[in-house]
Amino acid sequence: TSKTSATTSPSSSCSTASTRPCRGRFPEEVRTAPPSGGAPLSVENVDMSQQINKPKHYTTAYDTQSLVVRRGHEFMVRVTFNRELVQQDDFQLEFLIGSNPSANKGSLVVVTFGSRRGGPWAGRIVEMQGGSVLLSVTPSATAIVGKYRTYVAISVGSGMQRTKRNAATDLYMLFNAWCPQDPVFLPDESERMEYVLNDTGVIYQGSMGAIVTRSWGYGQFEYGILDACIYILDSSRMPIYNRGNIIKVVRKGSAMINSQDDNGVLVGNWSNDYSMGVAPTAWTGSVTILQQYANTGVPVCYAQCWVYAGVFCTFLRCLGIPTRVITNFSSAHDNTGNLKTDLIFKMDGTPDRRATRDSIWNYHCWNECWMVRPDLPAGYGGWQVVDSTPQETSDGHFRCGPAPVAAIKEGNLCHPFDCGFVFAEVNSDVVFLKKDRYGTMEVFKVDKTHVGQGLFTKALGSDQYMNVTHTYKHPEGSEADSRTMTRAEEYGCDRDHSDIPDGELSADITSEPVTHLSAICSYVMRWVFVCVEENSVIVKIQADEYLPHLGGQNSIRFILTGSSEEQSVSAIKVVTLLSPALTVTVGQQKHYQEYLMFVTVTFTNPLKEPLQNVFMYLEGSGVLALRRRYFPKIESQASVSWMEAFLPRLAGPRRITAVMYTSNLSQVSGMTIE
Amino acid sequence: TSKTSATTSPSSSCSTASTRPCRGRFPEEVRTAPPSGGAPLSVENVDMSQQINKPKHYTTAYDTQSLVVRRGHEFMVRVTFNRELVQQDDFQLEFLIGSNPSANKGSLVVVTFGSRRGGPWAGRIVEMQGGSVLLSVTPSATAIVGKYRTYVAISVGSGMQRTKRNAATDLYMLFNAWCPQDPVFLPDESERMEYVLNDTGVIYQGSMGAIVTRSWGYGQFEYGILDACIYILDSSRMPIYNRGNIIKVVRKGSAMINSQDDNGVLVGNWSNDYSMGVAPTAWTGSVTILQQYANTGVPVCYAQCWVYAGVFCTFLRCLGIPTRVITNFSSAHDNTGNLKTDLIFKMDGTPDRRATRDSIWNYHCWNECWMVRPDLPAGYGGWQVVDSTPQETSDGHFRCGPAPVAAIKEGNLCHPFDCGFVFAEVNSDVVFLKKDRYGTMEVFKVDKTHVGQGLFTKALGSDQYMNVTHTYKHPEGSEADSRTMTRAEEYGCDRDHSDIPDGELSADITSEPVTHLSAICSYVMRWVFVCVEENSVIVKIQADEYLPHLGGQNSIRFILTGSSEEQSVSAIKVVTLLSPALTVTVGQQKHYQEYLMFVTVTFTNPLKEPLQNVFMYLEGSGVLALRRRYFPKIESQASVSWMEAFLPRLAGPRRITAVMYTSNLSQVSGMTIE
Repeated sequence: TSKTSATTSPSSSCSTASTRPCRGRFPEEVRTAPPSGGAPLSVENVDMSQQINKPKHYTTAYDTQSLVVRRGHEFMVRVTFNRELVQQDDFQLEFLIGSNPSANKGSLVVVTFGSRRGGPWAGRIVEMQGGSVLLSVTPSATAIVGKYRTYVAISVGSGMQRTKRNAATDLYMLFNAWCPQDPVFLPDESERMEYVLNDTGVIYQGSMGAIVTRSWGYGQFEYGILDACIYILDSSRMPIYNRGNIIKVVRKGSAMINSQDDNGVLVGNWSNDYSMGVAPTAWTGSVTILQQYANTGVPVCYAQCWVYAGVFCTFLRCLGIPTRVITNFSSAHDNTGNLKTDLIFKMDGTPDRRATRDSIWNYHCWNECWMVRPDLPAGYGGWQVVDSTPQETSDGHFRCGPAPVAAIKEGNLCHPFDCGFVFAEVNSDVVFLKKDRYGTMEVFKVDKTHVGQGLFTKALGSDQYMNVTHTYKHPEGSEADSRTMTRAEEYGCDRDHSDIPDGELSADITSEPVTHLSAICSYVMRWVFVCVEENSVIVKIQADEYLPHLGGQNSIRFILTGSSEEQSVSAIKVVTLLSPALTVTVGQQKHYQEYLMFVTVTFTNPLKEPLQNVFMYLEGSGVLALRRRYFPKIESQASVSWMEAFLPRLAGPRRITAVMYTSNLSQVSGMTIE
Repeated sequence: TSKTSATTSPSSSCSTASTRPCRGRFPEEVRTAPPSGGAPLSVENVDMSQQINKPKHYTTAYDTQSLVVRRGHEFMVRVTFNRELVQQDDFQLEFLIGSNPSANKGSLVVVTFGSRRGGPWAGRIVEMQGGSVLLSVTPSATAIVGKYRTYVAISVGSGMQRTKRNAATDLYMLFNAWCPQDPVFLPDESERMEYVLNDTGVIYQGSMGAIVTRSWGYGQFEYGILDACIYILDSSRMPIYNRGNIIKVVRKGSAMINSQDDNGVLVGNWSNDYSMGVAPTAWTGSVTILQQYANTGVPVCYAQCWVYAGVFCTFLRCLGIPTRVITNFSSAHDNTGNLKTDLIFKMDGTPDRRATRDSIWNYHCWNECWMVRPDLPAGYGGWQVVDSTPQETSDGHFRCGPAPVAAIKEGNLCHPFDCGFVFAEVNSDVVFLKKDRYGTMEVFKVDKTHVGQGLFTKALGSDQYMNVTHTYKHPEGSEADSRTMTRAEEYGCDRDHSDIPDGELSADITSEPVTHLSAICSYVMRWVFVCVEENSVIVKIQADEYLPHLGGQNSIRFILTGSSEEQSVSAIKVVTLLSPALTVTVGQQKHYQEYLMFVTVTFTNPLKEPLQNVFMYLEGSGVLALRRRYFPKIESQASVSWMEAFLPRLAGPRRITAVMYTSNLSQVSGMTIE
């Protein structure tokens, strides 16, 4: 009692047995052959039960027609049949994603509801009322993330017949920080509120002594943003079946948020010439950027690190991945791969900019994502650094991470991805080298503490910063710290152990903590040069000396070098000038049956000269889409005021951010919480 | 007694301090200002002392005008000055590589010879005779690999004056398997002879029961090959300063040998239609392929796995990296990333080729490179898998490795690069799945031993194979093996633990070990189907049934499925048909003052039909560049003979390989050792 079949397949050595996409395998017919005793079963309606599902999945805020759910958690679908179900009836739900759905790859999921054995998603009948059946579906906690098409299939004699394609039954599936089986599970509710659901935030800029707070509208729930995030994955040509893998999704995201080598979202520009696009300092948030990218498919101009980090944060939170923006003050950029930062000086003591390839940024922003790391030994789950600012290629592309913060702290740089690069950003020794006449270079100073002075992120539920330096580093000089450094050296971190004798000279720069740009007639800078007897020299730099070179960040980097015949010394100091702020106030007024809201921005020009070609921008996630206003001229000491009316889409405390952009006064912004 | 200077540099947050390339920094003048008491020093000649250096660096065989050395070992340069050196004279050697040489990046190297402190390469004066000075230079064991330009610089009052660019003093620098400080150090001399210096070899094909030996001409010393290998790195736009890093060079090589996503060397083709290029089976070795690629910059058509592995071997040995070609019989290709191989069958028992994405290749070839892995914990140095056949993207590119063989053996898949993919190639479970009418799949068999049946490479100094399976796997069923499997599962290897009850049915296929194609009238295949009582059925397949489908590899894959009402069974067997061989003989004859060599290829057509459009190829590394011959027709049972004369470039025992290519008889080749 056995039947057999043998098939022969001539096969070349390396040819694969897999074949073409199988399109059109679903006949779009619903009518079925009549089962014995009863009208043929057919589907009259499929309702994705948004009102029930959305609050349970924390997805009410998404401004989209379709249901949005988080994987690993149950959702309901109500199917109305033409008649009550009987014993012989046999049906299933099918969820399809991508152009080539395959059960084997998780992109075609069959959910069954009887005793019949089903697929990876559990199904359960909750209630039946006549032909109306409420079904529960629990997607697997590793399901592919993206937009599924939903079908109901009914068994007929020869096979299955399916409902027609219906956009109203489409389903967005997200990562789920609430689900313990999901690799992005985050146990603390207040952390989930901040790192997944908060759609506004602040990013820190400036320098250690003068931290500047910039408001950013993440806007992950705004209209079109979820589609834009999926579009980013599509245009990266990331295979559908990898899109349930958190490591691959965040790594692909870090490559796609910058435009380099893949036509990704944002074009970087550090030139101070932004005439071909929007200046990095003029953005109020991510929404306009992502909408523009998804509508045009063309990279958006321009970004610097906080813009990359802000847009990346939107992308990640929108897909359900817990994330936050980190600012690292004095962030090294090791581009020679030796994990130390070489600053090269000429014989006359001036910096040799042509020979110096490594560099230190006053601050640099990146993101952290929360996830487990099943690909690594225990202990490396938790926060992972991901960075979308194009600094160096990681294995051929401009991308960085995920790099476990725990691995960076312990110097275990042997695990993927890019731990060495991040380690150098926060731990590099700064090596000061001097060239002699032969071109030979000699180390004259090693500064082990300048880089990675502090790492900060927004605190939970407030705009105060939270210092996270201790998650990246053991205390400077501790035993654990030297263990980390030793381990890092074993894995290729090249530290300078030059024996530089203590000389009689030392140097230091100090400055007034902060100087307001409004007192802009002169700026006082003091530095101290310590010799046999201590000497202190005060250097004054006039506004008209530094203003033409100031750039968008309002920062001046002072580099001091000095030498006697036996010894060279050096010191570095970054001074940040604070800009005046915009005042943003909000009011409301009853207008017919609704409360109409008003926002007012006011600004006074503190300079001695008029401001020309001033642009102002207003935006508030969930309440106010981007508004623009142009002022041709604002006279010295003159004030301007701009009021806009709006109707908020979402309830609760929301924030509105205002930014002013003009060529001779940068970093002017303001915000309010209403 | 101190001078100081302070410089201000306005800096935007993310802008780097590094700047433009510094071209033309070397004035091309040699004359110098006169030192006190003596004629101005100048350089009359620079001699790279090839006759002394080449034998010591094992580079005599390279067919190039320039000196080739291996890094970490001393070489000599003779500089002739216009007069004897005096105390005040001051000079240095400078080696430059790439378009933007920088001391900081190792692409501008200054070598000094006095008491003056020099750079990373040591210099020493060996002897002085008048103005003729013999200098010794010892490059660092981590020097950049590639082609350097050599200059002599003489100190004059205001700076340095340098010799003109002279192509005759160019210098190729290679990795050095003889140098204990070089990461590619290989202690055993016979291994270095095979894995670095052997320019011919054999690659194994066929199947476990019928291993076929194919000769391959690596030809790493032939004219233009070293330049072609550097050209490959150049056209990959790999930064010069990464080219001393063995891990980056081999990883880049694995990406560049295939044409996918970077216009690399070879286009893959598994279609059996090779009319737009050369069939993979028609190549005799790497030389023609690499020369064509370097001359045109266009990917070469066509390759399958052994062609990729052969050309990659040439690339690696040419640059001094120890490497060998590995053949893995029954090599799984996991393209769903779950590290198991799913074979899907329809309800009627026939393979569902559309649903089956994973596949098993009869055999697959890759390379191993020998190196230390300073980026990983101890124990992962030694042989590393690198694979240039485009199977799956690794982190976005078609490339694979370096993956430590030791990590694969222990299941430690958490280290870079691509250990999981290679692990699956040799260890995948083959999971047989059957679809029911609803599209639901059920496992009916798990074969844990089919994949990675054996791994082989050429033995040292012979054409015998060496079984290296034990370096990849612990013995099947051993305790160490199950520890490896457990560890691999921890790192994401998804194994099937379906509990499949032992049924009354089992199935097996056996076959005659090997059948000659010359007896081509009929082919006998036997398989055994084991039921309650054992049944054995013999299946005969006529030549005219299988010949139209046979393809280039002369292999037939038999798949057997059977089922009773309770149980399904399945078995797979690959049968390789052996082809007739070419006879290659060599003779010599004195011709004027030289011994002229002759090679004769003879072939008899064993088929009942005439062979049409027959191409034959002859090649011997170091002795005979590729020759081609076309035979429009060879009648049944007719013999042809083809003689070529040649003068060998290199002495010693050398091999000549002959290959015949015609559409209806493939895998015909022969070789000789003379």
